[in-house]
Amino acid sequence: MKEIFFIESLGKKMAKIAVLGNGSWGSVLGSMLADNGNDVVLYGNIDSVNQEINEHHTNTHYMKNWKLNPNVPATGDLEKALDGAEIVLFVLPTKAVRIVAKNVRKVLDKSGATPLLVTATKGIEPGSKKLISDILTEEIYPNDSEKIVAISGPSHAENVAQKDLTAIACASTSEENAKKIQEVFSNNYVRFYTNDDLVGVEVGGAVKNVIAIAAGILVGQGYGDDAKAALMTRGLAEITRLGVNYFGAKPMTFSGLSGIGDLIVTCTSVNSRNWRAGKQIGEGKSLDYVLENMGQVVEGATTVKAVHELAQEKNIDMPISEAIYRVLYENANVEDEIKQMMGRTPKPEIQL
Amino acid sequence: MKEIFFIESLGKKMAKIAVLGNGSWGSVLGSMLADNGNDVVLYGNIDSVNQEINEHHTNTHYMKNWKLNPNVPATGDLEKALDGAEIVLFVLPTKAVRIVAKNVRKVLDKSGATPLLVTATKGIEPGSKKLISDILTEEIYPNDSEKIVAISGPSHAENVAQKDLTAIACASTSEENAKKIQEVFSNNYVRFYTNDDLVGVEVGGAVKNVIAIAAGILVGQGYGDDAKAALMTRGLAEITRLGVNYFGAKPMTFSGLSGIGDLIVTCTSVNSRNWRAGKQIGEGKSLDYVLENMGQVVEGATTVKAVHELAQEKNIDMPISEAIYRVLYENANVEDEIKQMMGRTPKPEIQL
Repeated sequence: MKEIFFIESLGKKMAKIAVLGNGSWGSVLGSMLADNGNDVVLYGNIDSVNQEINEHHTNTHYMKNWKLNPNVPATGDLEKALDGAEIVLFVLPTKAVRIVAKNVRKVLDKSGATPLLVTATKGIEPGSKKLISDILTEEIYPNDSEKIVAISGPSHAENVAQKDLTAIACASTSEENAKKIQEVFSNNYVRFYTNDDLVGVEVGGAVKNVIAIAAGILVGQGYGDDAKAALMTRGLAEITRLGVNYFGAKPMTFSGLSGIGDLIVTCTSVNSRNWRAGKQIGEGKSLDYVLENMGQVVEGATTVKAVHELAQEKNIDMPISEAIYRVLYENANVEDEIKQMMGRTPKPEIQL
Repeated sequence: MKEIFFIESLGKKMAKIAVLGNGSWGSVLGSMLADNGNDVVLYGNIDSVNQEINEHHTNTHYMKNWKLNPNVPATGDLEKALDGAEIVLFVLPTKAVRIVAKNVRKVLDKSGATPLLVTATKGIEPGSKKLISDILTEEIYPNDSEKIVAISGPSHAENVAQKDLTAIACASTSEENAKKIQEVFSNNYVRFYTNDDLVGVEVGGAVKNVIAIAAGILVGQGYGDDAKAALMTRGLAEITRLGVNYFGAKPMTFSGLSGIGDLIVTCTSVNSRNWRAGKQIGEGKSLDYVLENMGQVVEGATTVKAVHELAQEKNIDMPISEAIYRVLYENANVEDEIKQMMGRTPKPEIQL
């Protein structure tokens, strides 16, 4: 540990942190980090949200009945947000990451600062099919991917806001940097576990949203607990195959917090947008209707396109994701897809 | 496949099957196997249950509002049940397996038959700390453990009775025998996946009941979805450590149906006895009160004793199981145990 990195105060390591993105998860993480004693600024591009946070310490569009730590200011000025930051936390929608990363690079070029980059964004970039850490490496640190840490695990903003017990993986190719984030982010209700498989941790978080849509569809169709558990397990098997064969991830990572842990909470919690979207589709609503009425991003509906392309390209067996792709974008019938899935050739369980 | 083994009829492989145990899971499995076209007999030692099954095709003590396939007779006569059986399916409480296995051996000694043995029983024998397959090998086939197949996965009797979609692992050291069971047991709503890790599949099924008690306790204490998902994931990590280090199981097995799949359904379904027992303990009821009022076996409360001994003996890190042991048998306080667990030294996620 480079002790110089962090301000020692009250016996706890502290850091100056810029949180990019002031949706529900960004606001809650920022507020939690301020509770931990860190010096936090929130950056977001909606003026009215920034103003509400600054004046009332609330963010009612994303989080009802909740107040941020009053020491967290919000700003639309990226240069101001990054000023002095030792850690820059990305909590943006996938599609916004590259453009914001380019802007971050411009600011860092001026200041000469080299903060740690942490991504809490979960997704695969459409088109390039890259993970968030790849985008950050390309745009900000082309020669130093060790400065990137991904955090991912079963953690709905609404639960962490209520200080529910939570466990999250923090992964980096640098053990030292993963440990720094573990130390700064952990407190008595959120426990961070280090992991050396950066891409594995990211794949789990990105692709689980596809399986969450599938789990919602099953519930919308009236199936029960066994079916949901089977879907999640077989979903994990195909996420693992994708992670190992396309991204070079380690299989065991998917048994962890960013894999099955996140999948469980995303497939069973009413706080999961992807699950709720799936449930409505299972009940017969159209994708367009569901997306229009959700009010927030349904990452799985975008991710499934990338997953479909990856599976096709590398010939990876992903029957659940492919079925979701067909249901969402090729007008396939849910009952037919289920019947077809149950009638596939008998298989061994573990096939990487 | 030894085609001679099964009666070919209506294009489907069929077998003569003795199901030992007529509780909820035994009755539902037996009825399902008869639906599949097999010739099934149920064996149980409660005369009134056998009589009810034979006269009314119901088993109301275990399964409300449900009827067995009327072609499934029940008997208390083991010799009669085993007569001509090609498959003997054990669906007994753990504590009954050894004594029934000894009796099965006596009958087989007379008949000379060598049926496949399938275990659906989940548990570790107190004292010996052996798995069910070990008991069956010792008592019935000391020189032929390949004739033993374990089935395990997310499958509550209540869900399978309603023909909910279900996926189950069937494991054997003999691929041929695992495939036989896959073929005879599968139908259009239950899909069996072969697995070559017999002990791994058994450990998952046995130990998950301990984690299910812990999940119930958390819910009884008022914690939410994130906490439960974290508990299940960290619970899986310690089950995996036990399986790998004590029983020689393969780590990836625990990502499968008998591992995380079964854990999910046991920790989230209201049909899970172990979860319900934990919830009551979390709400402040005593273990004695809970066990007396459950009306069915709570396997986890027994299994945790064996797990505690194994963890101590081999120095395996199992913080959740150890906490449950202390809460159930050493009067430990639940809040104190949670606080202690969240305050442990920070750790890497994957440690086998």
